[in-house]
Amino acid sequence: MSGFDLTEVADVLARVRGRRPRVHCITNTVAQTFTANMLLAVGGVPSMTIAAEEIPAFVERADALLVNLGTFDAERRAAIDLALPVVRETGIPWVLDPVLIDASPHRLALARRLVAEDPAFTRANAAEFAALLDMAIDDTDEIRFAGAERFALDELKVLALTGKVDFVTDGARSVKIANGHPLMARVTAMGCAMTAVAAAFRAVEADAVVAAASALVVVGVAGEIAAQGARGPGSLPAAILDVLYTLDPGTILQEARILP
Amino acid sequence: MSGFDLTEVADVLARVRGRRPRVHCITNTVAQTFTANMLLAVGGVPSMTIAAEEIPAFVERADALLVNLGTFDAERRAAIDLALPVVRETGIPWVLDPVLIDASPHRLALARRLVAEDPAFTRANAAEFAALLDMAIDDTDEIRFAGAERFALDELKVLALTGKVDFVTDGARSVKIANGHPLMARVTAMGCAMTAVAAAFRAVEADAVVAAASALVVVGVAGEIAAQGARGPGSLPAAILDVLYTLDPGTILQEARILP
Amino acid sequence: MSGFDLTEVADVLARVRGRRPRVHCITNTVAQTFTANMLLAVGGVPSMTIAAEEIPAFVERADALLVNLGTFDAERRAAIDLALPVVRETGIPWVLDPVLIDASPHRLALARRLVAEDPAFTRANAAEFAALLDMAIDDTDEIRFAGAERFALDELKVLALTGKVDFVTDGARSVKIANGHPLMARVTAMGCAMTAVAAAFRAVEADAVVAAASALVVVGVAGEIAAQGARGPGSLPAAILDVLYTLDPGTILQEARILP
Repeated sequence: MSGFDLTEVADVLARVRGRRPRVHCITNTVAQTFTANMLLAVGGVPSMTIAAEEIPAFVERADALLVNLGTFDAERRAAIDLALPVVRETGIPWVLDPVLIDASPHRLALARRLVAEDPAFTRANAAEFAALLDMAIDDTDEIRFAGAERFALDELKVLALTGKVDFVTDGARSVKIANGHPLMARVTAMGCAMTAVAAAFRAVEADAVVAAASALVVVGVAGEIAAQGARGPGSLPAAILDVLYTLDPGTILQEARILP
Repeated sequence: MSGFDLTEVADVLARVRGRRPRVHCITNTVAQTFTANMLLAVGGVPSMTIAAEEIPAFVERADALLVNLGTFDAERRAAIDLALPVVRETGIPWVLDPVLIDASPHRLALARRLVAEDPAFTRANAAEFAALLDMAIDDTDEIRFAGAERFALDELKVLALTGKVDFVTDGARSVKIANGHPLMARVTAMGCAMTAVAAAFRAVEADAVVAAASALVVVGVAGEIAAQGARGPGSLPAAILDVLYTLDPGTILQEARILP
Repeated sequence: MSGFDLTEVADVLARVRGRRPRVHCITNTVAQTFTANMLLAVGGVPSMTIAAEEIPAFVERADALLVNLGTFDAERRAAIDLALPVVRETGIPWVLDPVLIDASPHRLALARRLVAEDPAFTRANAAEFAALLDMAIDDTDEIRFAGAERFALDELKVLALTGKVDFVTDGARSVKIANGHPLMARVTAMGCAMTAVAAAFRAVEADAVVAAASALVVVGVAGEIAAQGARGPGSLPAAILDVLYTLDPGTILQEARILP
């Protein structure tokens, strides 16, 4: 995407800090605490209930909804189907994180159904994306990114593929981001929390490509800075939250690595 | 409350450390881990199961029960109704944390029913308290505290309102506490874990006003000291636990800020 | 056990780091995040879903299964009965952590039934072990360890008793480990996460005594080193993960304390 303006990243982050969007998260129990803390660190306001009686009221007052398939139980699954009609009614954006759909046919089928229900964007890693599109898992980034662009164009979707290089595309416009640090893969729920941040960004930025790409830049840059000071995967999550809380436009501009 | 003796705070904490009260927590999944670690850091012993077959046995051997409404599912809600009869039978205190009742009429109705079931005290922030009493959310502290005193007196309740200034009252006696740090609001489950500590304090101190006020002082002082050394909201929770574990009477006396 | 070769410990850890075994964890909601991070820090790959539709697919692709009884709900309990037939079919090892069975007759009955279903080993502390075998809780280590050896021999089980001194036995061979630090008991889910690490070790080491003993040495040594630098129970968990991530054979050999 020629023309992805890096100064927008800091602007979207500033809006999140100023407006404090509410993000209701139907997410897995492993990721809940870190997700809530990541949202609070960037300026969002999390809520996480899954009770049928409460979902409509919580989603109605939310500015964005996150649906993450990382762990399941019957009530969590039912909550998704109760939340989506409210989303359609109030018009807030919702974001899909189809975690580990490569591991379970049941979960993959659910993800496919959800992708059809118009998420603002879908975040997936290489294995999840390969499962979603029935592609080979060992494709090169080049092939995978081309497949993502085609899929996005055909289906009118926005995709955020995460990996060593992240790729955000709506089919017409694409952004490649080379931020992040390998140690982040050794912390559970890192990707889940990143998608929650992206949902908060989408709550204040109507362009889903800009919102998703900005979130990936912000969390990736924070991860790199945090990894420099961290002694390992244990101290990394707290360090990322600390960095996110005060990350400034100058640092973002300097550290962001958008590939051509 | 003239006559709230600050030396009692350290004394209650010393009793928790010495007796190691068991606190059974029916609490939300986001707060469970930090709540357990906060209880362990002050000297309490947490348990958290919600299974119908186990609730009676766990509550029977507990020294206090915490009921927190932060996230919901059918089984968690059923657990409350199974736990309260055991509490009445064994006579242990139970404490209510009606998190986010301002967000959901269903949850508010449940909280009103629970307030009627004689909790040792109820912890609420300004928005939750306003919802509970149908008051305006933008009242000043003065109006809110007066409302709390009236409600406490009329209904024979003890309330712990938390905010920039905390207010604990049974209607006749009131304590204002100005400890704590703004960064604490950027950590999920901070209030939830604080209420769990207050439940542990109540387990060893029959006076609910003294127990709740002491817990708010202890956690508030720990939060202030921890915030001085913390690099942000990420490193704050671990720092609070570290401080709580060794907090001494001299520091409490010196740092506590009880307002007239 | 004369002949427990300490060099095996580093070798098993190296295999975990190299092979990255998948450990599916049916575990309590309090322990999930720390358990996942502990597995990631040693090189394992965690998954944690409990949904009936997904359990078979997730267990089928796992290299080991952990069953931890720390908190309960109906779906988590049902997940165990769905997972065990898959384990028997694919032949992967599974490990039992019967947390707090001393607190609930219902849970104790379930644990007894599960012990009969051939776990690779069962991890229990003194109180849990006493409940399991109807022994007195205040027995000395000597009596408890003798009871464990008898039970292991009679029932063809492997037991890992944890405490100030850990004891791993299959009845014929026994290992006593004196690693670990008292501060570890002030962190929730420490034992739960340690058992998950032991499950990852068992995935790459067929000898259950060697696998369990190696895991207890590794986590115990990491806990001691981490405790030296930690300021309290808050900073300890992150420090343990940091140490585990880079723990080297020389340090293990030097710090391991195997008692005769």
